[in-house]
Amino acid sequence: MSEPFDAVDVIMTKRDRGVLSDGQIDWVLDAYTRGVVADEQMSALAMAVLLNGMRRSEIARWTAAMIASGERMDFSSLSRPTADKHSTGGVGDKITLPLAPLVAACGVAVPQLSGRGLGHTGGTLDKLESIPGWRAGLSNDEMMRQLEDVGAVICAAGAGLAPADKKLYALRDVTGTVEAIPLIASSIMSKKIAEGTGALVLDVKVGSGAFMKDVDQARELAETMVALGTDAGVTTVALLTNMQTPLGLTAGNALEVRESVEVLAGGGPQDVVELTLRLAREMLAAAGRTDIDPADALADGRAMDAWRRMISAQGGDPDAPIPVARETHEVLVPADGVLTQLDAYQVGVAAWRLGAGRARKEDPVQAGAGIEMHAKPGATVRGGERLLTLHTDEPERFGRALQALEGAYFIAPDGSRPDLPPLVIDRVE
Amino acid sequence: MSEPFDAVDVIMTKRDRGVLSDGQIDWVLDAYTRGVVADEQMSALAMAVLLNGMRRSEIARWTAAMIASGERMDFSSLSRPTADKHSTGGVGDKITLPLAPLVAACGVAVPQLSGRGLGHTGGTLDKLESIPGWRAGLSNDEMMRQLEDVGAVICAAGAGLAPADKKLYALRDVTGTVEAIPLIASSIMSKKIAEGTGALVLDVKVGSGAFMKDVDQARELAETMVALGTDAGVTTVALLTNMQTPLGLTAGNALEVRESVEVLAGGGPQDVVELTLRLAREMLAAAGRTDIDPADALADGRAMDAWRRMISAQGGDPDAPIPVARETHEVLVPADGVLTQLDAYQVGVAAWRLGAGRARKEDPVQAGAGIEMHAKPGATVRGGERLLTLHTDEPERFGRALQALEGAYFIAPDGSRPDLPPLVIDRVE
Repeated sequence: MSEPFDAVDVIMTKRDRGVLSDGQIDWVLDAYTRGVVADEQMSALAMAVLLNGMRRSEIARWTAAMIASGERMDFSSLSRPTADKHSTGGVGDKITLPLAPLVAACGVAVPQLSGRGLGHTGGTLDKLESIPGWRAGLSNDEMMRQLEDVGAVICAAGAGLAPADKKLYALRDVTGTVEAIPLIASSIMSKKIAEGTGALVLDVKVGSGAFMKDVDQARELAETMVALGTDAGVTTVALLTNMQTPLGLTAGNALEVRESVEVLAGGGPQDVVELTLRLAREMLAAAGRTDIDPADALADGRAMDAWRRMISAQGGDPDAPIPVARETHEVLVPADGVLTQLDAYQVGVAAWRLGAGRARKEDPVQAGAGIEMHAKPGATVRGGERLLTLHTDEPERFGRALQALEGAYFIAPDGSRPDLPPLVIDRVE
Repeated sequence: MSEPFDAVDVIMTKRDRGVLSDGQIDWVLDAYTRGVVADEQMSALAMAVLLNGMRRSEIARWTAAMIASGERMDFSSLSRPTADKHSTGGVGDKITLPLAPLVAACGVAVPQLSGRGLGHTGGTLDKLESIPGWRAGLSNDEMMRQLEDVGAVICAAGAGLAPADKKLYALRDVTGTVEAIPLIASSIMSKKIAEGTGALVLDVKVGSGAFMKDVDQARELAETMVALGTDAGVTTVALLTNMQTPLGLTAGNALEVRESVEVLAGGGPQDVVELTLRLAREMLAAAGRTDIDPADALADGRAMDAWRRMISAQGGDPDAPIPVARETHEVLVPADGVLTQLDAYQVGVAAWRLGAGRARKEDPVQAGAGIEMHAKPGATVRGGERLLTLHTDEPERFGRALQALEGAYFIAPDGSRPDLPPLVIDRVE
């Protein structure tokens, strides 16, 4: 046997609460990518990491080894600085859509490598694919050219980027080992560091509709990722933001594109506008451009221009009508009072069941499916008004979607003042 | 999907310190045997069980599900009661060889399904295969006939017995999940209960050469197994016995057969004789035969007769010369004094490196390889006398064997009285 380490020794080290050596980490990820370490060995190691944790130094080395498994991109030849944003995922989180062109309009290039939705959270690429003609796949050269010309690109990550992470992520998904902070942090950061962005703003969601249900866990994840980015020379900042209720008034692919265009046109829901501007300011500051106010670029139409050019550059028609689902179903407000709760997770599951999301990677999604919300927590509502509109092409889906919404909202007596968390809970740098 | 459970849910239940339901346990072991639950899912579950434990009720159900995965044998039609013994494995542990014919000579049938050695502990089948002509594989009918005619059989377990355990054991071996008490206990007991023995005596080894290094762990394993056996209607008793130093004066296949025959002939090392008689009394008592003293059957040659018939019945020639290794190397006593230590694990590793054991299941073993000990802890020794004789067919193996023996023994000044643990440390019933 010419391998310098033994998979069982590596597993037993972590199982017995030991610290993995640099050599063990480098080897196990390389050997796993080569197929020498088997899936059943890596999943046992992942479970040991989930239950026994990793030190910061181990997470840093693990991330570096995942980066080293593939290619690294380099945007240093661009004429402007780069900044990227990553959200840990939530319901109605369409922020990337208005944000990328807005930041580009302010003179900072945004190289967004995005993913598809799995489970109850939507995927940015799925949303953009509801625009007729738009395509997610770009070559590295096309990406570079678009960054220079338009300043913003949102596309799928190529197969060459962190292949160890791709293989490990698929394994974690079927072995109950997704929820390990060291593995989440290294998965996200290996891709963002390999992508070559100069600055990175992390939007770590907290609440029922997020991956992290409580603030302490979210803060630990944020701190871990900020340290990884900073150590790798990427200016990194994280915001912890509320995901107890959906973001904006829509959850679903085409519905969210429509809402994003409203924001770019100067309207849109207040929370989406607020978070877009806050993240834009963080990205500009991280890229060294504190002199520019993104609110101006949103108000004067420059952000909308950048959006139109970004969509066109990837084959999309920004003027084409956005798909609409064939069937709708209204959920009415059951009583007069104040809406005190509208649960993000339940709305996400309902939208997923309507056809907006997928259960398996290979499933298609419906462009028009999803949920429109006509009120958000804190609003005064009247019995009989519309609360939600459900959209789908397949009306037989309404039943299971309505089931998911059982108990998702609550109406308190008039005059109640619900204790709602702020949109931005904390900032980590 | 027509499966009643989801593998990821089962894994997450145990990962989050929950209690697996009967339905989850039955399903996961059945689905694993069918190949519906993948190796990488079962290894993640095994790691979660190792780190988070299982309740007694879960272990009992897990054991029952492993038994249900295959056939059950039934010896109730035999004209005499049955009793079996299981050792958790140690260095120089040849007790099964004299014990099975001794108990048979006392009127209780012994249906011993044994295994092969892996790592530093030897396997009973490997030892017996050093007898020319002897074969380990018997059909169920052959086994039944031999139990009726001879009263003792030592053979390999058939493929039909607890196939879930066979598959899971092979998986645990490569995923660092062997050392989980619930999985060890259920693995041993599922085979012994499915084998159909009426009584069972467990020899749980404790010390450097054993699987369990400390008494508390060993007691926990013993109590878990005794409860499993008792609940399944098998009269079960466990002894905790010392494995800090090897058992007897030999470690190696043919060397141990020779020593076993010495015991059957009325001689042999005192500790081997003592443990053989103690375990024989426990087996006879558990089978309801407290009227018989096995010391008589050893002294008057009845045990030796049963041994000869047992070996002959499986094709072996009890009179054939036992193989001897081609090369020997003497390790001499380095000083006058009292031998206070002779480490079981180190002697086991040295014997293994000499060729007595295997690193992988498919490796062959050398019949003659191993170690002879000329003194045991507590003995007064003189510098320049032989302490150990190393045996192998391949003299290039001596170097690494001697390396394994570095620091394995210690000579204290004359008159020292080392504090040695008793041979039988405790009894659990």
